[in-house]
Amino acid sequence: MIYVCWHTNPDTDAILSAMIYAKYLQLGWVEATPVRLGEINNETKHALSLLWWDVPLLVESLPAGSKVALTDHNEVTQSISNLDELDVVAIVDHHKFNFHTSQPIDILVRPIASTCSVIYGLWKARWEAISLDVAKAMMMWIISDTLYFRSPTTTQYDKDIFDELNHIVQIENTEQFSLDMFAAKSDLGDIHVRELITLDYKVFESGGKRFGIGVVETTNPSYTLSRKQEILDDLTNLKYEQQLDMVMLSVVDILNETNTTIVPSDVEASVIQQVFGSDTVDNIAHLWNRISRKKQLAWPVTDYFA
Amino acid sequence: MIYVCWHTNPDTDAILSAMIYAKYLQLGWVEATPVRLGEINNETKHALSLLWWDVPLLVESLPAGSKVALTDHNEVTQSISNLDELDVVAIVDHHKFNFHTSQPIDILVRPIASTCSVIYGLWKARWEAISLDVAKAMMMWIISDTLYFRSPTTTQYDKDIFDELNHIVQIENTEQFSLDMFAAKSDLGDIHVRELITLDYKVFESGGKRFGIGVVETTNPSYTLSRKQEILDDLTNLKYEQQLDMVMLSVVDILNETNTTIVPSDVEASVIQQVFGSDTVDNIAHLWNRISRKKQLAWPVTDYFA
Repeated sequence: MIYVCWHTNPDTDAILSAMIYAKYLQLGWVEATPVRLGEINNETKHALSLLWWDVPLLVESLPAGSKVALTDHNEVTQSISNLDELDVVAIVDHHKFNFHTSQPIDILVRPIASTCSVIYGLWKARWEAISLDVAKAMMMWIISDTLYFRSPTTTQYDKDIFDELNHIVQIENTEQFSLDMFAAKSDLGDIHVRELITLDYKVFESGGKRFGIGVVETTNPSYTLSRKQEILDDLTNLKYEQQLDMVMLSVVDILNETNTTIVPSDVEASVIQQVFGSDTVDNIAHLWNRISRKKQLAWPVTDYFA
Repeated sequence: MIYVCWHTNPDTDAILSAMIYAKYLQLGWVEATPVRLGEINNETKHALSLLWWDVPLLVESLPAGSKVALTDHNEVTQSISNLDELDVVAIVDHHKFNFHTSQPIDILVRPIASTCSVIYGLWKARWEAISLDVAKAMMMWIISDTLYFRSPTTTQYDKDIFDELNHIVQIENTEQFSLDMFAAKSDLGDIHVRELITLDYKVFESGGKRFGIGVVETTNPSYTLSRKQEILDDLTNLKYEQQLDMVMLSVVDILNETNTTIVPSDVEASVIQQVFGSDTVDNIAHLWNRISRKKQLAWPVTDYFA
């Protein structure tokens, strides 16, 4: 049995990547099951309900020696807690690479917007038909990861795959379909502040510094921004708990493609000023059209500390 | 332009992998050219002459900032000398992985016998026809890397691909075809002793130790073994020049699947005794059916030092 794990703070892309990769492994008669390491967000719930797929089992760790496949991540710090006791047999990802192996394993990384597009390539290489639900899941996943092709990480390859998949799924109005997904994602209800911050949150390390970047992708930024004081207090707690040098929460307006970032202290404000040239006023920095964490937030900060 | 490089001491697999990967990149209208970092062996000359392919350009380094793709290796120590000045855009391999990237790049690693089988998967994923010469090159490459399916690294996947390719190439007697390749490889003429040792030679690092393992795959082991004294002297020189803790040359009898290893000193003899349980007599250790460097030689020694 291969357990397919995604990173600890998953967005829709990551969860669907693990579920679809498990289905891909099953094509080759390999026993595989996705497991989840954290809560799922409303966009993912919306996606799973449209697909009639069950929510994967929640685990904190796996029995020592278990075989695992990692999707949408390859950094130990972002993975299952007892990864060092497990036997990593495969990695499918689209991030920078930082993983060592002592024997050859399956590794597939592509510099494209969605890990889905990576797995789609594998599927096609097997010359196997893609079922309606898997095709639909892949489309939702591409929408989520590219913000319906708004993200600067989007490649022509992602767009082409989306069109190929819609030959199977035949969604008439894909734009409206994406708006429904974003509306589900933006419906945060009375979410607890810590959950809001860590909905889509990753910790990075560079030049001896550790920094956390959370992102709230939403069509309704005013909701999150209205909870600024509460978020500031909890970012300070989180920074202490995780022994970080820096932490910030970017509120990304999906439709207008703008980034309003909540900045807990002068430490972060100074880095943001030097890296992005933006002033922080009342704990808010406007990072304009920087909507991709990977390409436009984490990478420049990593580069700055390095 | 992407330069496709293989490791510095290439076997037929490695050279053909770079040439075929360059052709694969060209399918997508990417400008790509293979370059070679060292001399080519007689098996490769035989293969290239059957294919009517030119020998790639020999380079020592590439202009700083050049884009490179690495095939059949991912260790900096085995790569082009100024790799740190180059922009690595892709890696295709089947070895253990030990490479960091600062941004997402194309990485494809599979735990199978031949890097060819890895690239064949890419080709198939594009649903592109494979031309006769490329198919023939891939078959030769699989023969070379699996020793015509004798190596324990061989997987069913490699065998299946070989059969699929022969639907295109239609070689009637593939066994005889492989024997011709091995005969070409075994025709070492009056090769210089250093060239003989480093025909297929790699340096590994583990637990602070550096060790070099050369392999002579041949249908005529007595030729190499008759030059034992000369080889012993030059192994000692090589060990000093490359500041190694250990060095050895395994003479692999392809047809009988046996490994007779030339051992320059008591240091190597002691490690070989502990790792493989074989005594060294007159600087010769019988390592029996250990014919895969990756799986049966380098890995156990790496594990021992770690």
